[in-house]
Formats: sequence, C-alpha cells, structure tokens
Amino acid sequence: MLLEGALRYAVDQQARWVYELMEFMRFPTVGVDPGHNRDLQVCASWLAVHLRLIGLQRVEILSTRLHPMVYAEWMGAPGQPTLLIYGHYDVQPADPIREWKSPPFTPVVRGADLFGRGASDDKGQMFIHIKALEAILRTSGRLPVNVRCLFEGDEETGSGGLLEYLSTHRKQMAADAVLLSDSSMPAPGCPALTISLRGVLSLDIRVRGLAHDLHSGIFGGAVLNPLQALCDLLAGLHDRGGRVALPGFYTRVRRWSPRTRQALRESGPSEAQILGSAGARSGWGEPDFTLYERTIIRPSLSIHGIQGGYQGPGSKAVIPASASAKVSIRLAADQDPHETEHQMRTYLARNAPPQVQVEMKSLAAARPVLVDRSHPVQRVALQALRRGFGADPRLLGSGGTIPAVSAFHHQLGLQVVMMGFALPDDRAHAQNEKLHLPNFNQGIQSSIHFIHLLGSGLQ
Amino acid sequence: MLLEGALRYAVDQQARWVYELMEFMRFPTVGVDPGHNRDLQVCASWLAVHLRLIGLQRVEILSTRLHPMVYAEWMGAPGQPTLLIYGHYDVQPADPIREWKSPPFTPVVRGADLFGRGASDDKGQMFIHIKALEAILRTSGRLPVNVRCLFEGDEETGSGGLLEYLSTHRKQMAADAVLLSDSSMPAPGCPALTISLRGVLSLDIRVRGLAHDLHSGIFGGAVLNPLQALCDLLAGLHDRGGRVALPGFYTRVRRWSPRTRQALRESGPSEAQILGSAGARSGWGEPDFTLYERTIIRPSLSIHGIQGGYQGPGSKAVIPASASAKVSIRLAADQDPHETEHQMRTYLARNAPPQVQVEMKSLAAARPVLVDRSHPVQRVALQALRRGFGADPRLLGSGGTIPAVSAFHHQLGLQVVMMGFALPDDRAHAQNEKLHLPNFNQGIQSSIHFIHLLGSGLQ
Repeated sequence: MLLEGALRYAVDQQARWVYELMEFMRFPTVGVDPGHNRDLQVCASWLAVHLRLIGLQRVEILSTRLHPMVYAEWMGAPGQPTLLIYGHYDVQPADPIREWKSPPFTPVVRGADLFGRGASDDKGQMFIHIKALEAILRTSGRLPVNVRCLFEGDEETGSGGLLEYLSTHRKQMAADAVLLSDSSMPAPGCPALTISLRGVLSLDIRVRGLAHDLHSGIFGGAVLNPLQALCDLLAGLHDRGGRVALPGFYTRVRRWSPRTRQALRESGPSEAQILGSAGARSGWGEPDFTLYERTIIRPSLSIHGIQGGYQGPGSKAVIPASASAKVSIRLAADQDPHETEHQMRTYLARNAPPQVQVEMKSLAAARPVLVDRSHPVQRVALQALRRGFGADPRLLGSGGTIPAVSAFHHQLGLQVVMMGFALPDDRAHAQNEKLHLPNFNQGIQSSIHFIHLLGSGLQ
Repeated sequence: MLLEGALRYAVDQQARWVYELMEFMRFPTVGVDPGHNRDLQVCASWLAVHLRLIGLQRVEILSTRLHPMVYAEWMGAPGQPTLLIYGHYDVQPADPIREWKSPPFTPVVRGADLFGRGASDDKGQMFIHIKALEAILRTSGRLPVNVRCLFEGDEETGSGGLLEYLSTHRKQMAADAVLLSDSSMPAPGCPALTISLRGVLSLDIRVRGLAHDLHSGIFGGAVLNPLQALCDLLAGLHDRGGRVALPGFYTRVRRWSPRTRQALRESGPSEAQILGSAGARSGWGEPDFTLYERTIIRPSLSIHGIQGGYQGPGSKAVIPASASAKVSIRLAADQDPHETEHQMRTYLARNAPPQVQVEMKSLAAARPVLVDRSHPVQRVALQALRRGFGADPRLLGSGGTIPAVSAFHHQLGLQVVMMGFALPDDRAHAQNEKLHLPNFNQGIQSSIHFIHLLGSGLQ
C-alpha cells in the first residue's frame, strides 16, 4: 500500500468527510425509543450504501430481534491478518431537547467542534475508521489486511441483537484483532489507548403497594407511599461515606498494587480536570481513592430516573399506586454482574417493608474488560497513535461499558484495540454532544497507520 | 317557600340534571396545566350562563391572576340570613389517562355511579347546591334567604386567586354562613357533616449539583448524583416507625381527650374499610393511632413525584444535573404551615451534602380548620341532612384540605358548613373518579331542607 498517498488523500478529503458525517448524524437513531425504529432502519441502509461506495464488499444488513446491524468486508489479502472493525450507529436520547444550543439532529460546526447527538458517541468515532479504509482503498485499490466491519444499532440499549448474533456466528467473525473507537483521550493532541472498561448491570426496580393512586389528603399517614418506600430503598444503597452498601459488593473487586495505582494517577486526568469536565464544585465517593480511580478501578451505582406519581407542572396531591427507578451499577475488574444482581435482589428482599411488593428486572449486563497491554497488537496500536498524533499515547482506563467489547474479549477471546478519540468534555449522553474535529483528522491518520502496521506483520 | 314543591320538583328533574352535570364535566378544566387555561375560561362562561338560567342575579365572571371565578347572587330577602355557597369547577389532572376505564372527560353512567374527572371533586358536589337553588326558585319564584354563590377555578392549585380576592373583598362576601360540599360521607345512605379539615403545605424541593447531565460510566463514583442526594433527603423525612422526622414537627399538634378519640373511632370508618378504599393490603404510619386517626387528627407527609434524569422507556446512563421532588404535608389541628415550612428549611439546610445546592419553594399553604360543632348553623345542617337522607348524620373529620374553607374560617371568621357527598371509594384525584347518583339526589334534598331551615331562622 502507498502509505503516504493514503495519508495525503485523507488530509485532502477532510471537508467532504465532515459533511458526510453530518449527513450520518442527521438520522435520529435513538435506539431506546420505539418511535425511532424506522430512523434506525433508514440509517442502516444509508450506512450500507456508504460502505459499498467506498469499496467494501459483501455489504449486508443483518436483522436482529432489535435494530439491524450492518456488515461489510474486504477479504482480498489471504495470509494476512484479519481485522474486525466495530462501531454503533444508534445514539442516546436527546432530551431534554430545550437544553441544546442547536437542535441535536441538525449537526453544526462551531469553532473546531462538530455539535450534535452522536458526534462522538459513536457515529463520529466509527466514521474515523470507515474513512481510513476509504483513503487506503481509493489510493491503493486494496487493503494490506483483511477487514470485516460490524456496526450495530443496539449499543445504547445493551447490544442485545449483537450479543445474540455473536453467540451463534463465532466462525463468521473470526479475526486477529478488533478495532473500535468508542472511548476517550485526555486532551487535544494527547492520544490514548483504552485498556480497561467497567462492566455494567442495568436494573429496573418497581415498588407496588396500592390498587390505584390515592388522594394524599384522604389517605396520607395511613398507607405506605410506594414512592417513599422506593426512596428509602434507594437511599439505603449507599452508606454515608459514599460506598455502595450492598453486602459483599466489593469482595471481588481487584486490588491494584501501589505501583499500578501510581501509574494510573499519573496517566489519568487530575481532580481539577475531572471536576471541570463534570461541571461539579467538589468530588464525592469512596474514600481512599482519587476521583479518577473511583471511575476506573472502583465500581459505582447511579440512579438514572424515578417514575411514579405526578411529573407535570404545579402540584398534584397523589399517592401513586406504584413507583419505579432505573438504576445501573458499573462493575470494576473481576466483578461479576450475575453475582451483583443476586446481591441486589437479596438487599431488596431483606429491606422492602411488608406493605409493598418489590420487583427487579435486569435490563442489561456486561462483564468488565481488562486487555493485555503487552500483546503485540496493542503495541502496534500505540505506534499508530504516536504517528497519527505526533505525540506519545497514554494507556487509559474507561469508566464506561461497551457490551460488544465484553463479548469480543470474554466470549470470542479476541484482542480488542480501543483507540479513544472523544474528549472528556464531549458530553456523550448529555446535551450539546460534540466531536473535536482535529481528533477526527488525527484519528483517521492513526487508523491508516494502524492498518498499515498490521499489514506489515505483528512482531 | 313551598318546601314540598321544591323537593318534588327536584325528584322529577333528576335525569335532566345528571345530563347537565355531564355537560359540565366535559370541560377538561385541569387548572394545574396552562394548556387547559382556555378550557377553564369556557367552562366559567358555561357556568355563568347556567346560573343566570336558573334565576340567579348579578352573575359575573371575576378575573383573578389565575383562573376566573364565577359569582352570582339572589339578595331579595332583606332581614333574612345570607348564605354563601362555595365550590370549584377546576379538577385534578387525569393522567395516567390509560388507566381510566372510560375517557376522563367523557362522563358515563355505569350502574348507580357517574364516572369522569370532577364527578365528585367538585363539579358534582357543587352542582347539588346549584340544583337545590333551581328547585326552590322554579317552584317558589324566590328564596327564603339571601344567597351569594362563589365558584372558583383554582382550588386544586391552592386557591391563589380566591384567597387574594377574599383578602380585599371581605365586605362583598359578608354572610351568616358558608355552605359547601367538597368532602365525603362514610357510605351510601349514611350522611355526614365534616367538622375538621387538615391544613396543607405544598413544596417543591430541588437539588442542583452539576453544570450539565453526565454519563454515569464516565463520572459514576466521582460526583454526587443529585437524584441520589434527593432520595437521601426524602428518605430522612420519616423515621423507621412511620413518624415524620422533622424536629419539632409534632410539638403543636392538638392532643385529644380519650373520650373524643373514642367518639372519633366510633364515627369513622374501620381499618378494613380504609384499607379496602385504599386498595392496600396493610396499614402504615404513626404508632398509637388508628388508621382513621392518622388521616384526621395526625399530620402526614407525602412525596407526589420526582423529576430528573430519564423517565422514558428502556434505560439511559445519565447522572442528571439536578433533580426535584413535589412533597406535601397535611397539617393537623393547631399546626401552622409557616412554622412547618421553617422546620423543613432547617432540615434541608442541615442535611444537604456540601456537593449540592438545595432550594425549596412553597407552592401552597393553608391552616387546618376545626368548626364549632355546637353552633346553631351546624345544628341546622345536621337536621337538613337527617331529612334529606332519612338517617342520622355523623360528624366526621376530613384528612383533606380546602384552602377556601381555611380562609372563610380563619380570615373572614365565618361559620362554614361542610356537607360531604362523596364516598370513600369515589377516587377523587385518582383514575376512574365517580359520583354515586343516589348521593346526588339525596344531597339536593338535603340542600333544599338546609336553605328552608335557614330561612325559618337559627335557634
């Protein structure tokens, strides 16, 4: 392959590619909302056409019981390694929409940033690798390695479709490495390889107590309010010191050596940087760990929303018949989501007052991931990032979860390379999500280098 | 006046009057929702026209800073007592609408009950007195007493407009008694006079902690989740024994003699009846008091709804920037809403963690009411109920609040007569609200008797 030609082509095409990315981001692919099902289908078709146009082969739309996946390949390099490129075209919901400076699905460039839902998570980041493939195919007519692309539409809802597919299509997905970008880097010009992900357990907890809603004037004081019982149960999930109070919760969590923790502290963001990105005045959480450690090597529990009673303007004197909460737990290395689910069930059974019935539903589960940083493919990835950005990359942990990575790593036993191109203030999942365009450009350069180095063989 | 003629006329007109009431209930007069402002205006006009048609005079629509009030009078009995009839034409929100067996604003008769929002609270109950006036005016051409009618559209939102109006129009509202029906009776055929109401303090509590929503994977464990801080604060408002845990909360609450408590227990519903109406398996609350006492002579605190984060289907891994709760406190005799508000502010200031800011807004406040059961006008009311229902009426307390009654009683110093015609299972404020039609009929008979007896003089 003509490396220089591909790199130069990529520089020349930036403006057009940003425009194409904006087109990709216009599809409101909110996977969690059934009202957007059709948008995901249309977006998958657009993506399939796009992959065919840049020169990939056997492009297919794969149905799942949820949203479709898009598969494409280029297998014209027999004897060479096979790379599986993964990404997801579904996005988080955009609400509250009024808090966006520009409409979430009308992408707009302000300064050096591209704003819109999916800009970094994950349309923008997956597009980086698509464009790297295009640059090489357009300038060399071929790729130096075999490539499979697998892009799903269920990531934000737990990757149910993909996980089912992988469990029955191990052979079809055979590869020497998986490449993806759905994580972050510390700052512009400062590349990073993600080497760990937290796992997740997403739960829906419902408290039922009454046959119907009641008037709080008439019944207040004589019956237990399910919303109050729910608050009590949720409040009991943390102790006063900021630790999760489920018995046994921390037992399996990996203890790191003082040296590893020191290295982690040095490579990760400072307390001030984390608070700045969070827009928080002060930190909170488990004592004896830095803020960065709390998000990477320690588990956490978050309440995402509470339903029940009256949510509208003004007041309504109602005691709701039932109430529910969405809660998720991020799991640190060596924790097992099934064990944690059991701990939660036990907690709820022991602490639910007799006046109510508590039900818990598991919405998603994924084990934590820790890659082997000494594996040759990870060393190649570091080299590619070094060349793409002209700076030494860091090894980072991520507090987030990518269920597909969990499956590639634990079930398929594949080496997963996670190049993160999102910035800490890119607000994935929040309002005014963005992608820093220099990262888009340098990301494509890094991806071209990675494919080139992989084609030269793993030492 | 020709008492027998009026009573017979009322019996003859029942079918037509139920039809008129259904017409009145079709206006979706949800006062709390600004989207319904126009519906309240149209309903007020309909009501004004109706009052003119039945023979009342000086009918006026009075603007307030909120929803309009409707005033009407008949002052043709100089030297006779003046009766002020109060009611409200606004209703509670109907959501969740899918839990209604028939649409909330399409009233329908099933068996002996009329279903629809406002059936008992308060369109149906206020219509009882309107129809009593019609019966007397149609059959006698005049009333035996002077009458003022004042119907408001702000009751469910705290009666802000009415309270402002009363504070500046004391003279215009001069009366010897106030008559209203916005409370309940124990069972069909078992009339009741309400002699006490709990007061209310409605609050909005907001916890702010972050500049914007965050991804729980990236930040979970390092920042305090405002939704969790809110749950902790709300959980702390009750102790494990079911008592409100605000310091000083119970200090002023009136202690009743064992004899009064005994009488109360005998006149009120049984534990089984309360649990049956509530659709609850077992009771809850302050030890040492019966369920009925807990709702009548003891205060209570209810959480009505919690906002913040993600409320939609599926899951969203968000840590919300802020979260808020709607809470109300029902106050027992001798409690003062301002003092309670101060206790709540102190509690929040003392218990809010340093990572968040807590704001509290008072949405409505009303003092509890205890009428003088030995006053002649209450004795006349008991006599009227006895004649209307052919059964001895009970004296009841109500756990609910009627801010207008608070103002008539405490500020204007008027005797307030509360004839309650709703049944315990009429589900005011909840789905499938209804009015028992025999109560509608016997209520009208009772109201005719009351006006007649009042015209004969108070002994």
